[in-house]
Amino acid sequence: MPELARDFGLLCGTLEPGAFNTITDVPGVSVGHCTVNAGDVHTGVTAVIPQPGNLFRQKIVAAAEVINGFGKSVGLMQVNELGTLETPILLTNTFGVSACATALIRRAIEENPDIGRTTGTVNPVVMECNDGWLSDIQSMAITEDHASEALLRASSAPVVQGNVGAGNGMSCFGFKGGIGNSSRQIKLDGQVFHLGVLVQANFGRAGDLVLPDGRRAVPDSIKEPERGSVIIILATDIPLDHRQLRRVARRSGAGLARLGSFWGNGSGDIALAFSTANRIRHDEKREIISAEVLNEACIDILFQAAAEGTQEAVLNAMCAAEPMTGRGKNHRPSLAEWLLNNGAEK
Amino acid sequence: MPELARDFGLLCGTLEPGAFNTITDVPGVSVGHCTVNAGDVHTGVTAVIPQPGNLFRQKIVAAAEVINGFGKSVGLMQVNELGTLETPILLTNTFGVSACATALIRRAIEENPDIGRTTGTVNPVVMECNDGWLSDIQSMAITEDHASEALLRASSAPVVQGNVGAGNGMSCFGFKGGIGNSSRQIKLDGQVFHLGVLVQANFGRAGDLVLPDGRRAVPDSIKEPERGSVIIILATDIPLDHRQLRRVARRSGAGLARLGSFWGNGSGDIALAFSTANRIRHDEKREIISAEVLNEACIDILFQAAAEGTQEAVLNAMCAAEPMTGRGKNHRPSLAEWLLNNGAEK
Amino acid sequence: MPELARDFGLLCGTLEPGAFNTITDVPGVSVGHCTVNAGDVHTGVTAVIPQPGNLFRQKIVAAAEVINGFGKSVGLMQVNELGTLETPILLTNTFGVSACATALIRRAIEENPDIGRTTGTVNPVVMECNDGWLSDIQSMAITEDHASEALLRASSAPVVQGNVGAGNGMSCFGFKGGIGNSSRQIKLDGQVFHLGVLVQANFGRAGDLVLPDGRRAVPDSIKEPERGSVIIILATDIPLDHRQLRRVARRSGAGLARLGSFWGNGSGDIALAFSTANRIRHDEKREIISAEVLNEACIDILFQAAAEGTQEAVLNAMCAAEPMTGRGKNHRPSLAEWLLNNGAEK
Amino acid sequence: MPELARDFGLLCGTLEPGAFNTITDVPGVSVGHCTVNAGDVHTGVTAVIPQPGNLFRQKIVAAAEVINGFGKSVGLMQVNELGTLETPILLTNTFGVSACATALIRRAIEENPDIGRTTGTVNPVVMECNDGWLSDIQSMAITEDHASEALLRASSAPVVQGNVGAGNGMSCFGFKGGIGNSSRQIKLDGQVFHLGVLVQANFGRAGDLVLPDGRRAVPDSIKEPERGSVIIILATDIPLDHRQLRRVARRSGAGLARLGSFWGNGSGDIALAFSTANRIRHDEKREIISAEVLNEACIDILFQAAAEGTQEAVLNAMCAAEPMTGRGKNHRPSLAEWLLNNGAEK
Repeated sequence: MPELARDFGLLCGTLEPGAFNTITDVPGVSVGHCTVNAGDVHTGVTAVIPQPGNLFRQKIVAAAEVINGFGKSVGLMQVNELGTLETPILLTNTFGVSACATALIRRAIEENPDIGRTTGTVNPVVMECNDGWLSDIQSMAITEDHASEALLRASSAPVVQGNVGAGNGMSCFGFKGGIGNSSRQIKLDGQVFHLGVLVQANFGRAGDLVLPDGRRAVPDSIKEPERGSVIIILATDIPLDHRQLRRVARRSGAGLARLGSFWGNGSGDIALAFSTANRIRHDEKREIISAEVLNEACIDILFQAAAEGTQEAVLNAMCAAEPMTGRGKNHRPSLAEWLLNNGAEK
Repeated sequence: MPELARDFGLLCGTLEPGAFNTITDVPGVSVGHCTVNAGDVHTGVTAVIPQPGNLFRQKIVAAAEVINGFGKSVGLMQVNELGTLETPILLTNTFGVSACATALIRRAIEENPDIGRTTGTVNPVVMECNDGWLSDIQSMAITEDHASEALLRASSAPVVQGNVGAGNGMSCFGFKGGIGNSSRQIKLDGQVFHLGVLVQANFGRAGDLVLPDGRRAVPDSIKEPERGSVIIILATDIPLDHRQLRRVARRSGAGLARLGSFWGNGSGDIALAFSTANRIRHDEKREIISAEVLNEACIDILFQAAAEGTQEAVLNAMCAAEPMTGRGKNHRPSLAEWLLNNGAEK
Repeated sequence: MPELARDFGLLCGTLEPGAFNTITDVPGVSVGHCTVNAGDVHTGVTAVIPQPGNLFRQKIVAAAEVINGFGKSVGLMQVNELGTLETPILLTNTFGVSACATALIRRAIEENPDIGRTTGTVNPVVMECNDGWLSDIQSMAITEDHASEALLRASSAPVVQGNVGAGNGMSCFGFKGGIGNSSRQIKLDGQVFHLGVLVQANFGRAGDLVLPDGRRAVPDSIKEPERGSVIIILATDIPLDHRQLRRVARRSGAGLARLGSFWGNGSGDIALAFSTANRIRHDEKREIISAEVLNEACIDILFQAAAEGTQEAVLNAMCAAEPMTGRGKNHRPSLAEWLLNNGAEK
Repeated sequence: MPELARDFGLLCGTLEPGAFNTITDVPGVSVGHCTVNAGDVHTGVTAVIPQPGNLFRQKIVAAAEVINGFGKSVGLMQVNELGTLETPILLTNTFGVSACATALIRRAIEENPDIGRTTGTVNPVVMECNDGWLSDIQSMAITEDHASEALLRASSAPVVQGNVGAGNGMSCFGFKGGIGNSSRQIKLDGQVFHLGVLVQANFGRAGDLVLPDGRRAVPDSIKEPERGSVIIILATDIPLDHRQLRRVARRSGAGLARLGSFWGNGSGDIALAFSTANRIRHDEKREIISAEVLNEACIDILFQAAAEGTQEAVLNAMCAAEPMTGRGKNHRPSLAEWLLNNGAEK
C-alpha cells in the first residue's frame, strides 16, 4: 500500500474520514480501473458506478458544477436539466471520451432493449483530462473494450489510487498526478452518513502547490502553462435534491483553491455530485412521489466535507502516484519523494 | 365586470381554467391592490401573498427565471440559491421597489422580532415594470404605506384586473396594459390541482401583437422603442421542487412569444414560480425531512399550462384595462375597443 | 425544388430574407449533408462549416443557449466558457455523436499536428436529435466516414432541405421533420448583413402545431409523448460578442413557441449562435487586441430575426420534407400534403 | 496608519502590489466612506465610484458572480444581462439597501433629467452584509443622506480600511471584520495595468481562519453559526469584456477558500468586477463600435491576481480593524492583537 497524505502528516480539515477514506465508503458505490500502458501510451479508464443494478431504470439524483469549462466532458447538460444520472460515470483522457460514451450506450441498450425504440435514448456521462504530456493522446488508444473492462472490474473495496485507470497519465502542480480519494463521516438524526470523493487530478502549475501546513512544494521541472484539468466526483448517501447537490459540488472548488489553484484558464475543472438516496424510477406510475431531503440548515457540514475532502483526495492522488517518464522522455517526479526529501517521516 | 379575452372569443390553448380563471384559484393564494392616481401619477402596488400565516417561519418553495434581465427586481438571487420565498411578493413601478422592500422588511420584523438579532435577516421580493410613459415615475410616489395597503387588502376572491395596483400605468404592444390573470386545472393521481398566473404586463412593441386567431392588433399610436417589462407570477398547489419550478417558470416565455414578443432588449421579463405544497420550516429541528414531488414524466402539462396561461393572462390584462391618458397627455387605447371595432361580438 | 413555407403563403414576421433564404446567405458559411438510408436505417450527418480555413487556428466567436437540456450535444460547455468555436458543427442522431466527435478530432489533428503535443486539445461540437421513431437508432449506423463525407460535401450554395443529412429521420408535430433554413437581411451603418438559421427539426407534439395564420395543422397520427429535440444554428456576419450571441440564441426559443411548442420535457432544444466577424487567433501574440461589437441598442432587430427566422426554418424543414415510412412501418405524413389538402394554392 | 497584513509578514501570493495596495491604484477609481456610530448602531456606507463623470451616459463594462447567493444585493441581474454598470456601487448593511438604492436613483435623475421620461430607467447597484451582531440592524439607521455623504467623500487617495463605512459593524472568522483593500500590478504589451480589490468582509466561522503561513487563528469567542457575507469589488484598467470579467470575478472565491472559508450556507458571497476601459456610451450613434479586449491566453495572471488579491484584502480588513464591543455587549477581538500575542513582530 502506498503512503497517503495522512501518512505524511498532511491533514485537510477536521472531519473524520470513513473506514477506507475512499469514495467506496458510501454504501453501494463501486470503482474500477483499466490501466493502459503501451509504448508512448500511458492512459486508461476509471469507472464510478453509483449503485448496483439497472441505473437507467432506477436513476440517481445528481448535479454538475462547472468550475472552469475548458473541458470536453459529455452528459452534464442533461444531468443539470433533469437532475438525474442514468449510467455509470466513466473518466478517461480527452480523446477517449467517444469510445467510453459508446460503451455506455451499448451497455444501457443491452440492459434496456426498449431504449430508442419504445422509450427515449440514454445519456452517457463521461469526463476527462488531457494526458498528452505523458501519453500519446493523438493515438486515440482508448477503445470500448477498455471502458467495458473498467466497468467489469468495479468493486466496493477501498479504491486503488495513483497511476491507475484514468489517472495513469496525469500531472499535477508539476508532479505526477493520478486518481485520488477521500471520505468524511457526517452524523444526521443520529445516523452516520458519508460524503466520498474521487478525483482525476491533472491540474495546477508547477510552483503553485501549497501544502496544508503552509509549505510550497516545488518540483524540479520546467514551468509550462497549465493545460490540465481536474474531475471531482462526490458521492453521498445523504438525501440531497439537485439544487443541494449542485451547491455541494461547487464547494469542491474551495478544496482546489486551498491547494494553490486559481482554476486556470486552460483547465477543465468539473465537479459531479450524486446522492444514492431517493432513486428515480424510469417507469414510475405514481404522478406524485415522496422523497427525503436534507434540512438546508444542516448543509454547512457537507460544504466543509466537500472542500476538505477534495483537497485531501488530490493530495492522496499525488502521494500514491509513482514518478513517471512518459511520451518523449517527459518526466513527472512524485510528491512522496519530495516530502521525504523535505523532512517527512514515514 | 370587464370583458376578458374569452368573452371576445380569444382562446389560449386547450386546458380548462379554474373556477375564477385567476391566480386565486390556487387555494390559499391572495392578491391585493393599492392604486395611486394623483395628477400625473398613475401607479400602484400589487401584493401576491402565497399563503396565509408567517411566511418567514413557514417558507414557500420557489424559483425565478430571468427571460430577459433588463430589470430591477430584488430578492431573486436568494430565491434561486435557497429555493425558498419568505415574504409576500410585491409588484410596483421601477422606482417604487425600495419603498416596497422596506415595507416587507418591517412587516417581517414585526412578525418575527428575532430577525437580525438571534436569527438571520429577511429577503424581500419586489418586482417591477417601468410606468414612466403614463406616470410621473421621477416623483417616486410609492411609499411604504401604499405597500402596506396592498398587503392589507389581499383577498382570495377573484382578482380585479386591468388598471389596478401595479398595473395602473402599464403599456402593452402600444395598448393599455395592466394586471391580468388566468388559471388552469391539472389532474394528478385523481385529484384536481391548479396552476394560476398573474402578470404585470408592460411589454411589446406597437404592431407586434398577434392574437390567438392569427390577427395582428395594431393600435393607432407612435411606434417607440420598447422600454417595458413583464412580470409573471406562477402559483401552484402541485408539489414541485425548485428545479421543477424553474423549468415551469421558463415556459411563461413561450406564452409571451406566442403574443408576438421576442423578449426585447429593453424589457425586464422575469418569471417567479412557487408551490404551496411542502412548506419549509425556519425552525425545523429534524435534520432530514420528507417532501412530495411531481413525477417529472408528468411535467409537460405544467409547461403547457404555464405557456398558455401566461398568454391568456396578458390578454386579460389588456382586455380589462381601460384606455388611459396619462403624463404629458400620453395616451394608450384599449384592446377591448380595438376588438369591438374589428368585428368582436360581446 | 420543393415548395417552402413562403410558397404556401406562410409568412413568418416582417424582415426581408437574403438571396437564398438559407444559412449560406451569411458569407463564408457552408453546409454539407451525408444521407444514410439502408433497411430500417434512415439517418445522416449535416455539417455546418462557419468559415473556410483552419478553424482551430482562427477561432469563431460563439455561444450556446440551452432552451431545454434533455439532449446529448457535446462541446457546448467550452463554447460558453471561452466564447469560441474551433471546429465545424456536426448534426446527427443521438447515438451518432461519438463517431462525429471522433471525426472532428482527427480532422483537427490532421490540420494541426501540434494538438495534444505542444498545444492543448480540441473541442469538437456535435449536436443531435433522436430519430429512433423512423430509424433503427440502436444499430449505431453513423461512422466517421459519414461525418467526413458531410464535411467534404459542404458548399456555400443554397442549402438542400427536408429529408437530407441529419434531417433524414426527423419528426415534427406528428409530420415529417428535417433540415430547414431561413435568413434575414439586417442593415447597420449603411451596410447589409445577414442572420442565417439552420434547424434540425424533430420536436413538437402532434396537434400542437400552429401556422402563422392561426390555423392548427393536425396530422392523422397517433399522439405519442414527445421524445424529440430541435437544434438551431444561427450564423451572422454582424460583429457580436459572446454575451450578445447568447442573447440572440435565446430568441430562437421564441420562434419555437410561436409554432405551438412549449419546449417539452423530453425535447433537447439547443441553440448555437456564431459570428463570422472578429476571428480569434490561436497563436495571437498581442496581449491586447481590437474587436468590433454591435451597439447593444441595435440588438432588437437581431432578436426579431432570430425569432422569426427560427419559426420559418422549421416550417421550411416540414414543407421540404417528403413523407416517410420508416422503421417498423412507422409513418410520418408531409406538411406540404396537408397544406394542399387544406386549401393552399401552389 | 494601522498595520496591514504585509506589516505582520502575511504575504498572499507572488504578484507585486500597486503603489497604495488599494483599489484606487486603478486610475480613476475613487472610494468614500460614511461611518455611523450612535448607541447600539455601528454601521455605515462605502461608495466605490468606478470613474469620474456621468456613469449613466458613459457606462462601465462589468460582471457579477454569485459565489453563494444568500444575499440581498440589488442591480446584479441587469449587470449580467447587459454587461454594464451605470451607477456607483454602494456597500452597506442588509437593511440599508433600499435607502442607498433610492439615493443612487435620485443622483442619476439629477444628472440625467431624461431618465424615466424620454429614456429608460436606471439600475442602482447596492451590495450588503448583515452587521446585526454588532449593530442594531432593526433600527434601519441608514438614510439617503448617509449614502450621499459616502459618495461625496469619494477620493482616489489610498483607501482608509477597517471599521469604516460599510465595514463598521462587520465580523470575520470570529474577529472584527471591515473594509479591506489590495492591488496587483500586471504588465501587458509593455504597459503596467492594475487589478484592485475592495472587500466588505463579514464572513467565516470562528476557528476556520487559516493564515498564509498555515497557522489557524482562533479567537476567544463563542462559535455561532455563520450568518455573514462578503462583498468583493474588483476593478481593473485592463480591457476585459463581460465574459472575461465574470471569469475573473469568480476567482475571488479562490481567495476566500484559501482563508479557510467554504462559502457557508448563510453567507452572501458576491463578487462584482469592472473594467475602466471601453466605456459604453448611452447615446451612441454608431451601430457598430470598436473595443479593445484581452487576449484570453493572458487571463491566468488576472485569475491569480483576483485570488491572491481577495485573500490579502480580507486580511487587510481584519488587520486594520479595531476591536469592537457593539450591540448588547457583543464583542469582536482584533486579528492584529492576536498576531502580536502569537509571535508577530511589528
